[in-house]
Amino acid sequence: MKKAFKRILYGGDYNPNQWPREIWQEDMNLFRKANINSATINVFSWAKIQPSEHEYYFDELDEIVEMLSKENYDIVLATSTAALPAWMFKKYPEVARTDYYGRHHKFGQRHNACPNSLVYQKYARRLAEELAKRYGSNEHVTCWHVNNEYGGECFCENCEKAFRVWLKDKYQTIEALNKAWNLEFWGHTVYDWDEIVLPNALSEGIAKDKTAFAGMSIDYRRFNSDSMLENFKMERDAIRSFAPHALITTNLMGTYKNLDYFKWAKEMDIVSWDSYPSYDTPWSMVAMSHDLMRGLKGQPFMLMEQTPSQQNWQPYNSLKKPGQMRAQSYQTLAHGADTIQFFQLRRSVGACEKFHGAVIEHAGTENTRVFREVASLGNELHSLGDQLLGADNPAQVGIIFDWDNYWALEYTSGPNKDLKYVNEIHQYYRYFYEKNIPVDMIPVDADFSKYKAVIAPVLYMLGDGMQPKIESYVKDGGIFVTGFMSGIVDQSDNVYLGGYPGPLRKLAGIWVEEIDALAPEQSNTLRFADGTDSVCHLLCDIIHLEGAVSLADYTSNFYASSPAVTKNAFGLGTVFYIGTQLEQKALEKVLDQVMASSEVKPVIDAKTKLEIICRSSQDKLYYFVLNLTNETLPLPQFFAGKVDILTGKALTGQTSFAPYDVALLCDERQ
Amino acid sequence: MKKAFKRILYGGDYNPNQWPREIWQEDMNLFRKANINSATINVFSWAKIQPSEHEYYFDELDEIVEMLSKENYDIVLATSTAALPAWMFKKYPEVARTDYYGRHHKFGQRHNACPNSLVYQKYARRLAEELAKRYGSNEHVTCWHVNNEYGGECFCENCEKAFRVWLKDKYQTIEALNKAWNLEFWGHTVYDWDEIVLPNALSEGIAKDKTAFAGMSIDYRRFNSDSMLENFKMERDAIRSFAPHALITTNLMGTYKNLDYFKWAKEMDIVSWDSYPSYDTPWSMVAMSHDLMRGLKGQPFMLMEQTPSQQNWQPYNSLKKPGQMRAQSYQTLAHGADTIQFFQLRRSVGACEKFHGAVIEHAGTENTRVFREVASLGNELHSLGDQLLGADNPAQVGIIFDWDNYWALEYTSGPNKDLKYVNEIHQYYRYFYEKNIPVDMIPVDADFSKYKAVIAPVLYMLGDGMQPKIESYVKDGGIFVTGFMSGIVDQSDNVYLGGYPGPLRKLAGIWVEEIDALAPEQSNTLRFADGTDSVCHLLCDIIHLEGAVSLADYTSNFYASSPAVTKNAFGLGTVFYIGTQLEQKALEKVLDQVMASSEVKPVIDAKTKLEIICRSSQDKLYYFVLNLTNETLPLPQFFAGKVDILTGKALTGQTSFAPYDVALLCDERQ
Amino acid sequence: MKKAFKRILYGGDYNPNQWPREIWQEDMNLFRKANINSATINVFSWAKIQPSEHEYYFDELDEIVEMLSKENYDIVLATSTAALPAWMFKKYPEVARTDYYGRHHKFGQRHNACPNSLVYQKYARRLAEELAKRYGSNEHVTCWHVNNEYGGECFCENCEKAFRVWLKDKYQTIEALNKAWNLEFWGHTVYDWDEIVLPNALSEGIAKDKTAFAGMSIDYRRFNSDSMLENFKMERDAIRSFAPHALITTNLMGTYKNLDYFKWAKEMDIVSWDSYPSYDTPWSMVAMSHDLMRGLKGQPFMLMEQTPSQQNWQPYNSLKKPGQMRAQSYQTLAHGADTIQFFQLRRSVGACEKFHGAVIEHAGTENTRVFREVASLGNELHSLGDQLLGADNPAQVGIIFDWDNYWALEYTSGPNKDLKYVNEIHQYYRYFYEKNIPVDMIPVDADFSKYKAVIAPVLYMLGDGMQPKIESYVKDGGIFVTGFMSGIVDQSDNVYLGGYPGPLRKLAGIWVEEIDALAPEQSNTLRFADGTDSVCHLLCDIIHLEGAVSLADYTSNFYASSPAVTKNAFGLGTVFYIGTQLEQKALEKVLDQVMASSEVKPVIDAKTKLEIICRSSQDKLYYFVLNLTNETLPLPQFFAGKVDILTGKALTGQTSFAPYDVALLCDERQ
Repeated sequence: MKKAFKRILYGGDYNPNQWPREIWQEDMNLFRKANINSATINVFSWAKIQPSEHEYYFDELDEIVEMLSKENYDIVLATSTAALPAWMFKKYPEVARTDYYGRHHKFGQRHNACPNSLVYQKYARRLAEELAKRYGSNEHVTCWHVNNEYGGECFCENCEKAFRVWLKDKYQTIEALNKAWNLEFWGHTVYDWDEIVLPNALSEGIAKDKTAFAGMSIDYRRFNSDSMLENFKMERDAIRSFAPHALITTNLMGTYKNLDYFKWAKEMDIVSWDSYPSYDTPWSMVAMSHDLMRGLKGQPFMLMEQTPSQQNWQPYNSLKKPGQMRAQSYQTLAHGADTIQFFQLRRSVGACEKFHGAVIEHAGTENTRVFREVASLGNELHSLGDQLLGADNPAQVGIIFDWDNYWALEYTSGPNKDLKYVNEIHQYYRYFYEKNIPVDMIPVDADFSKYKAVIAPVLYMLGDGMQPKIESYVKDGGIFVTGFMSGIVDQSDNVYLGGYPGPLRKLAGIWVEEIDALAPEQSNTLRFADGTDSVCHLLCDIIHLEGAVSLADYTSNFYASSPAVTKNAFGLGTVFYIGTQLEQKALEKVLDQVMASSEVKPVIDAKTKLEIICRSSQDKLYYFVLNLTNETLPLPQFFAGKVDILTGKALTGQTSFAPYDVALLCDERQ
Repeated sequence: MKKAFKRILYGGDYNPNQWPREIWQEDMNLFRKANINSATINVFSWAKIQPSEHEYYFDELDEIVEMLSKENYDIVLATSTAALPAWMFKKYPEVARTDYYGRHHKFGQRHNACPNSLVYQKYARRLAEELAKRYGSNEHVTCWHVNNEYGGECFCENCEKAFRVWLKDKYQTIEALNKAWNLEFWGHTVYDWDEIVLPNALSEGIAKDKTAFAGMSIDYRRFNSDSMLENFKMERDAIRSFAPHALITTNLMGTYKNLDYFKWAKEMDIVSWDSYPSYDTPWSMVAMSHDLMRGLKGQPFMLMEQTPSQQNWQPYNSLKKPGQMRAQSYQTLAHGADTIQFFQLRRSVGACEKFHGAVIEHAGTENTRVFREVASLGNELHSLGDQLLGADNPAQVGIIFDWDNYWALEYTSGPNKDLKYVNEIHQYYRYFYEKNIPVDMIPVDADFSKYKAVIAPVLYMLGDGMQPKIESYVKDGGIFVTGFMSGIVDQSDNVYLGGYPGPLRKLAGIWVEEIDALAPEQSNTLRFADGTDSVCHLLCDIIHLEGAVSLADYTSNFYASSPAVTKNAFGLGTVFYIGTQLEQKALEKVLDQVMASSEVKPVIDAKTKLEIICRSSQDKLYYFVLNLTNETLPLPQFFAGKVDILTGKALTGQTSFAPYDVALLCDERQ
Repeated sequence: MKKAFKRILYGGDYNPNQWPREIWQEDMNLFRKANINSATINVFSWAKIQPSEHEYYFDELDEIVEMLSKENYDIVLATSTAALPAWMFKKYPEVARTDYYGRHHKFGQRHNACPNSLVYQKYARRLAEELAKRYGSNEHVTCWHVNNEYGGECFCENCEKAFRVWLKDKYQTIEALNKAWNLEFWGHTVYDWDEIVLPNALSEGIAKDKTAFAGMSIDYRRFNSDSMLENFKMERDAIRSFAPHALITTNLMGTYKNLDYFKWAKEMDIVSWDSYPSYDTPWSMVAMSHDLMRGLKGQPFMLMEQTPSQQNWQPYNSLKKPGQMRAQSYQTLAHGADTIQFFQLRRSVGACEKFHGAVIEHAGTENTRVFREVASLGNELHSLGDQLLGADNPAQVGIIFDWDNYWALEYTSGPNKDLKYVNEIHQYYRYFYEKNIPVDMIPVDADFSKYKAVIAPVLYMLGDGMQPKIESYVKDGGIFVTGFMSGIVDQSDNVYLGGYPGPLRKLAGIWVEEIDALAPEQSNTLRFADGTDSVCHLLCDIIHLEGAVSLADYTSNFYASSPAVTKNAFGLGTVFYIGTQLEQKALEKVLDQVMASSEVKPVIDAKTKLEIICRSSQDKLYYFVLNLTNETLPLPQFFAGKVDILTGKALTGQTSFAPYDVALLCDERQ
């Protein structure tokens, strides 16, 4: 197990360029009191360091790097390419994006470069090179941060042309393209690559989330994700040519829809991400996002950004309560982070993020609750040393998360507009979260054999090779869980003919004849084998058993008494199929059976509302015990007698956890 | 009574061009089992049959026509002009539409041709000619289907120019135009035809449904409807020049707002339409739409499209329950259809309609509930033979439906934004529906003398000649029912001065001094002559009696004790005026009086929740008895002893109708 | 005290140009019966009086002026520049505006001129000159009405260029601009004035009410307001050059957001405004708008428009009830109006305002409730003579209303999107309204020393010089009330560092460490010194006392027991700080203390739900007593024995006020 860093990076975005020099030393003094050891710099300085086409100006950045180096910081050096300078828009309007509605933009905001603009590419590459040339050999530059929160989409003419090239590379012939997109439908057959029009509000787009040809729109998402990934790779390679051993990342955004992060992660040295839950985001969703980020490379990740206190861009920006930031940070570490970084270190004086919290608030002093909490956590992390770095999060359950499916499922026209990909995945994740069963979020091309159970909700789009892969996994004893809206289409969004769930039909031992849609005010009922009743929503598969047994039958509507949930033996393994959106209690009943079949165990054998996570290093097991509820909770007996590394105190059977209380316990690995 | 067809057409949209050849014979085999005898083909094949400007390619279509002819199908041959090929957009961008927001579109979707594009017109005409030349003499081509679901609007520069020509033809002088649109208001006077700008979001449009000059926007709707009608006529005439006896239609969409279907129907040989109720559409609304489609020409119509099972483009696409499709089909026949056609015969493999149900589902077999129900209905219809074809739907009540009013009423700025035309008409229709009183939906230029009662809710815009026409109808003994927001404006949307309801004032024997608007949370109360109270909403006319008597007075607000509902003797007839939006119970009370006055009777004299419709041929009366409720309902005694043609069994006093049960009974005509 | 008019102007918008000549004399006859003495003409006649670039046509306007002069009307002569003629758009498309979304508009609607179009400016100035030349010396032209309801925004290229000039005038150097807008943030630094792009949806605008750089967007609002003000001044000066003593106004719109009316009022001879409350607008909000309009110049104002009965452009346009228009008119006079004018005198026959009420309704007779009420009020006002004209509204409380704050506060990104400027001001105003305590709505540059108490809710943006100004006011004994989101930013929207509320910290004797945001479903609780509890919403300041005392502490959330409302002695005065959005009862409790401290008294010392307002002339006090509730209310004893000027009858202890009853009582001034 390779450690990416020598210590837990603790710090965050730092923009001294926005402040007069006298503030810089104040910053250093305050940061020292908080045990801050890292700073992410140069995130939005393109206009500063390249004031015109022909000039580069590094004096200020040199000073910043020097100051931080002197303080022995781990510098996370950004390339500044996420916001273009004004002069570039003025001289080359093509660098701007065209939006979904066909409007070509002007200078403004950020994340505003057309990824296929050659001008943008030329200057972004050159900037990365200049930075790498200058700072590539600085040993304090621990990590390179390309761009920032890649995202959005462009629909300009350059992108249209590049899309055609991308398509030709992919499909080779126009006939293959016509077939893939089923363009015979509505007579959309094209005879020439140049007849292809990108899908937006002026062409195939029906509304932002609906389109006449999902196959085309999914390809456009792939193309857009790839285009930005090319931007990333271009900068990465530019850096690498001057700093061959650089650790290079860019900050991701959890379940952000537009980019296929699994594909991206393959090109990144380490995953980093920005965690910004809302005041009402469930903790299980936060945990799932961490697990997804860890899953991208199956390795520890960096928490590149979180707010010490408050956000600004949510509708309602509640304060984090005392202890909450600490607990949230340990949850992040528990799920695989090796860094805790804030946005930002000093709160900005103007523009749209001035109400976003920071380590140093507008008051400018150490005498704030926020600073005290940051400093206190800094001390704890400092005393932890490097022991956690690189530790694993072992899991026996994998949940598939797949951007192709995310895109495809939400482009479907019918059967039910309320079907949302992340919600469906999260409903399953929540079960494992509440049971303290560790989970890996995995891609469709993961090695399933590592898992006792693979969970694949709404596995709508099933690419080539998936059928044999899943069959072989189950044949060898794997447990596979899937359900409604699975196995429906191939990677071009064309339906697998011959009966749903297509390639999964044999595996699941069922045939889904019809899919009923329920409006929000409607529900159906079902009864489990044990006689308990439940209610279901959204969609109802009408299932015929073809070898499977029913675990629950519908009890209402015309398909009453037909199966709603089934189980099928296949080779040495088992396939569970859940044909409707269950309420959480009912889903729990089914997944309890899945866990029983697969013999997967939770981290510890105890019922508790505490979140308990285990990271394991080569010789040790680290138990994170977190109270993210509003209640005071008892310590499970399993931990009685163990010492909390954070406080040095032994826990007893009487120890209780107040809200946001955290303990970190360590065992020798068996 | 001329029969349009030799048998009930049973089939639907069929797109073998989207499928490999091996599927075609499978289709034929399956369709045979379902007694399918008709197919609508070539609906979206323009790109296929005209791959470039200079080439036509008919080989595949020839094969399809030949195959269907061999199977003795009634072919409904579409002209394919509803979706333009990609090459045409590329070469002639002007063929695309410009939307309400002024954005010129690119290739994409369908119904995408600017109706005033000369390029589009040239190629559409030529395509219709080529098709007619080739297939015009094929006796299996029973019906020509021009384009598909004409609709939408264009706001491009070509349309602007054509609009000016249309206006000059209509108004002759610029002074007449200024007067008609009241352009002196806000100083909008134009001095030259070229100063006229079409009304959209960049000019007079305030929001999509509001405008500064309703007169102009109504004219633009008329113009747009006329422009598309010219497109239809152009193709129709092209077909006719090669197939002089062709039966030519295009499929309409019920109460679709944008096209004046009464004007269109005059140019069509037969009306056809596509019926797609939502999961929560009341059956009375479905029935009203059928009656409207029958009313367009006062003749039987074709049901060109319905889904056998499920739609895809609604927010929630529920399955049709067992029996529902059959019951719905008989309701359609009952209201005047001579065909039952599905969209579509085989479910598409990709693109946005793949979740739209079809006779052959993705499973591809006859072994589905949907197929069995389609086949079973096919057998029934086959055994019915031609006896129903061309039968009348006699009615003594006419309800006016008028697109000019639809447009004008919904463009008004004030008094109440919640006033919706179709809802108002439907509230009245529902009364007759629930009483099983047959109704004709009629245009303003209908012959009123055929009806004992004419119902005219929200007859807001009253064209030239309407006043004497209604007066003469009532004078001769007719019963006329109207109400709030009637008689307000002339055909240019200018108010009839001298007191509301303008030309109807003398007829109704009242003067409406003011119109109060109620917000959704507000209501007024009223009391009927019999002492019962009710609640009313939306708008309240403040009425002075000028000869009329009051049937109900308001009991709240400052106009308490002034009349809300009135009745006026005029000549030999009577005019009822309902000055506010009544609750259904109260409306029933008033319309009961209307029915008593007019001596109109329901189909049978019995209170029942069954829908009962009578169609009459030259010598027979056909009673359709339909249970469209969720309850089991008893058979009215009137039918006891009669034989159900569909089953051959006699009904008894004990016969009951489960949900979706249907019977078809036949009497000799007296 | 100078009187602007010789009598109370009673009349309104009059558009005989929209009517045939025979109607004109009818109008004159009817108006005479209503004691109408004034007409606002020529508001939208540009197309009529300038039919082309080179022609002016005044014949009709001459006739109208002559007719009204003969009838001894006070003519309010508009310049017609608020809607451009069609020919101007055709010939010079640049006169049209470009909207926020970047769409350049075409001919249509009104208020449609780009304020920075030189073509528009040229022709508008010329038109004003021509009118002034022709009618400037007519003694019946009592008032000039420039344009109409200036408003909206333009985002065209001309405006962009003009914006750069405006900015250069303001900031002098590009460095100053970069600093003011904090352009270092997100690397937006500009190096050249031409790199500046105006903020709209294509650049910095995130949504219509959010932006990346509030400082820039606030400057754009200032610029847009200034640009239109230049338009006004240009016409004003053109008129004045031919009519040096003309009284010149333009009609404003209360709390309309886009224009800085305090800046405008400085350029206007008299303020006039259009009062259009909705069916559910609280009367206190109507009163506040009047007080704001009076406050603009600290002088009586004109009510340029109100509807006699009904509006058309609201969602629900209720009728004014009997007596309501009269009561509302007296409320207007009470708050400082010297005119009562209607939109409009005759209801238009067509276009979008035909459902807007008028003195002469579509019935065209005097025999309507509306006409009778107008005529009756006309008689009353006529008999009042000129005694009220120019009378003052003395007040000891000033509430700050400030457009810079309005703009800045609503551009903030965070902490709570539901924070709305006018609502916050109104919540405070309502207290004084309900207590019948007279209030002046004042600008930030008002002379505070005139007031015993100055109320400054959400004084978010604090310009240069405000701190010493407020300090000196309080030091000298003033009472200053402010609260959450105050003292946060300077005039460039950059935060005052060093702890909230910035420059007010010393004054208020507190430090606000954090600002918590509550979602709509959340609330906190607080307890007052007297032991009563209350609930609060929206935002919660977490306050440290630095000299102040707490009047109420939070009792929930982690900051329970920290102060929510504080009071601080400062010099001879006191500062109250309200750190959260209180419920009305709790706010009342605090403001009762404020009133006790300041010794401010209501108009009369009695608790009543009647609205009671006092205007004072040089020797008299006029008491307006208004019942704007739904209940019958007793007369306060203070007025027993006084004579109601309107009826000539003495009021007694038994007099009661039915809803909409009004009395006007007069005392000699002490």
